[in-house]
Amino acid sequence: MDYMKESLKKHREWKGKLEVVSRATVGSAEELSLAYTPGVAAPCLAIKDNPEEAYALTRKWNSVAVVTDGSAVLGLGNIGALAGMPVMEGKCVLFREFAGIDAVPVCLATQDTEEIIATVKNIAPTYGGINLEDISAPRCFEIERRLKEEVDIPVFHDDQHGTAVVLAAALINALKVVEKDLSTARIVINGAGSAGVAITEFLLSLGARDIVVCDRAGVLEREGEVFNEVQRDLAARTNPRGVKGVLSDAVRGADVFVGVSVKDVLKPDDVRAMAKGAVVFAMANPSPEIMPDLAKAAGARVVATGRSDYPNQINNVLAFPGIFRGALDARAKDITAEMQIAAARAIAGLVSDGELNEEYILPRAFDKRIAPAVAAAVAACARGARPRA
Amino acid sequence: MDYMKESLKKHREWKGKLEVVSRATVGSAEELSLAYTPGVAAPCLAIKDNPEEAYALTRKWNSVAVVTDGSAVLGLGNIGALAGMPVMEGKCVLFREFAGIDAVPVCLATQDTEEIIATVKNIAPTYGGINLEDISAPRCFEIERRLKEEVDIPVFHDDQHGTAVVLAAALINALKVVEKDLSTARIVINGAGSAGVAITEFLLSLGARDIVVCDRAGVLEREGEVFNEVQRDLAARTNPRGVKGVLSDAVRGADVFVGVSVKDVLKPDDVRAMAKGAVVFAMANPSPEIMPDLAKAAGARVVATGRSDYPNQINNVLAFPGIFRGALDARAKDITAEMQIAAARAIAGLVSDGELNEEYILPRAFDKRIAPAVAAAVAACARGARPRA
Repeated sequence: MDYMKESLKKHREWKGKLEVVSRATVGSAEELSLAYTPGVAAPCLAIKDNPEEAYALTRKWNSVAVVTDGSAVLGLGNIGALAGMPVMEGKCVLFREFAGIDAVPVCLATQDTEEIIATVKNIAPTYGGINLEDISAPRCFEIERRLKEEVDIPVFHDDQHGTAVVLAAALINALKVVEKDLSTARIVINGAGSAGVAITEFLLSLGARDIVVCDRAGVLEREGEVFNEVQRDLAARTNPRGVKGVLSDAVRGADVFVGVSVKDVLKPDDVRAMAKGAVVFAMANPSPEIMPDLAKAAGARVVATGRSDYPNQINNVLAFPGIFRGALDARAKDITAEMQIAAARAIAGLVSDGELNEEYILPRAFDKRIAPAVAAAVAACARGARPRA
Repeated sequence: MDYMKESLKKHREWKGKLEVVSRATVGSAEELSLAYTPGVAAPCLAIKDNPEEAYALTRKWNSVAVVTDGSAVLGLGNIGALAGMPVMEGKCVLFREFAGIDAVPVCLATQDTEEIIATVKNIAPTYGGINLEDISAPRCFEIERRLKEEVDIPVFHDDQHGTAVVLAAALINALKVVEKDLSTARIVINGAGSAGVAITEFLLSLGARDIVVCDRAGVLEREGEVFNEVQRDLAARTNPRGVKGVLSDAVRGADVFVGVSVKDVLKPDDVRAMAKGAVVFAMANPSPEIMPDLAKAAGARVVATGRSDYPNQINNVLAFPGIFRGALDARAKDITAEMQIAAARAIAGLVSDGELNEEYILPRAFDKRIAPAVAAAVAACARGARPRA
């Protein structure tokens, strides 16, 4: 199927993939008096007296805004927020279908960091959570960090953390297949944009110790002007063996390659230079860093991509619906690293040891057990969470 | 029925009066590839190439944001945006039920004029129209004026213009009943907040010439510090006979009283002092400026209120769903005074000369003919509109 052509046709038929419907009926003067004036004054006053009542008397408890500035939409780049709307509506569809969440797009007319922060802060009372989407690095880091501090509902940049959670779940299971340990595995991350940075941070928090991060200019460096501040900071906390050079230098002897970059950058010779039982996660979309058959032929034992037409699809939809469902259910004020670790372990745990093999390291996107399992794990973590020492 | 108590109970059952549902199904990998990645890139690129395509490929064509800062909610005053949410959700229910519009609440964490303007500008690409709601005067005037200039979708402050349109429809028919002419009628408006100012402007644009506007401090004056800038400006364009004093001075000999103020300010003696065949529109909610039976006993011929339990309810729901439906259908960039006049005449026209009487000057809120009739009139006006000379 020509997905592009068919999708355009379907979008013309849909005329928008979302609809807002009423849970109240207003078919008589009496019903109108309850749903609207004069009766509606009662829930207003109840919330005025106790703001927590907004979670019981309005849809805030189940609402998520999917916010974009359109600066990094899919692999299409900076196409602007209006052009990003079909993706945001699609994301809202997934929130609804997989987790029963009322999600709405918010497409912003600005790409200024401070304006984005101010705007999201100003609209935040409306929602129970904020999903940041397709905002380019490095602005996305500052925007998320500030919003997490400044609003009292969960803020989550899915391109960073959703990707990291699903990738970590895949890696937990892939390392089981190849019988290696996360704490000693040599891991190369290629791509130091929002996803690559988040994956690195997350794998560190899970116990990985030997991570080398590359970007277009090669292995990240702690000094100089080649890399941005976030990347220089990351260089200082990774690469314990002091690897220098470019990607082909970094992957020599590596156990794991994680690509969140562009197509065809990992060569068969690079895979041949990796350690025995190599794990290759080539997630560039739609064309991966190396095609799975090439990677396999060059000796990779476990290969995963972002594509649905190969085994082991690393798809954010495994994580974000359940993560937000759990956060909303627990009325969490934040989506912490611990909650994300709980989500990754829950996803990985849905593949039993008996089922686990090199072509089945993750549950399929349509497995209806996923979102409830993730939500339960995330909510339990949120409810039991203690401040870290 | 105790509407307050019953409404609170219903709101606890509803847990929010809106729900976001999906128009696309994502039950298989193929469906997911059409509604989301990779297929969704096609509508994104189509919109990037031609922003008008957003109206065909996303829900923008049918979406309205109901935006409030919670500064003037119902008669409850400045209860804040979160506490205003039940009203905003109720408004969205009415948009859906009467005009098939996908409306969503946007409750703002700021009451600063410039921040509100910046925020609404920044989120505007998401929607086909902006309904400003329950924002206090005089900030609402500046906010609406600036947004009308600065965004390319219709912006409409319903508390001002929706009220003005329905009141004008009522007045057109009431003056038929009492056989008087708008251009010569002596009209007193009591209350110079957002609704009072908008009603005055709108009646002037419809051809009224003798309007006297009062506020708490009495008849508006062109100079001094008692009244705000908007009110002083209005004073300069009304009151051709130079009436001075307080409300009881203004109503002496008046043909029409319009109250958008507070309860019990119009006394039976004031009504007795009005001209024969007096029209009294007492719209303070929930308790009017004078109770209808008192006004009638004092000689008023036609009495209307905002209440559903008396004849002649002046209810904004007669106007805003159809006005936005028409504006969206015509892809209007603005909701002009001409479109509002078309709406008022369409509403008035739904009461035939045979039906018209002093207790039936407006169609009932649940008359399903209203929104389509208003929408058709507004859309026709928008499509045929020429710039004013």
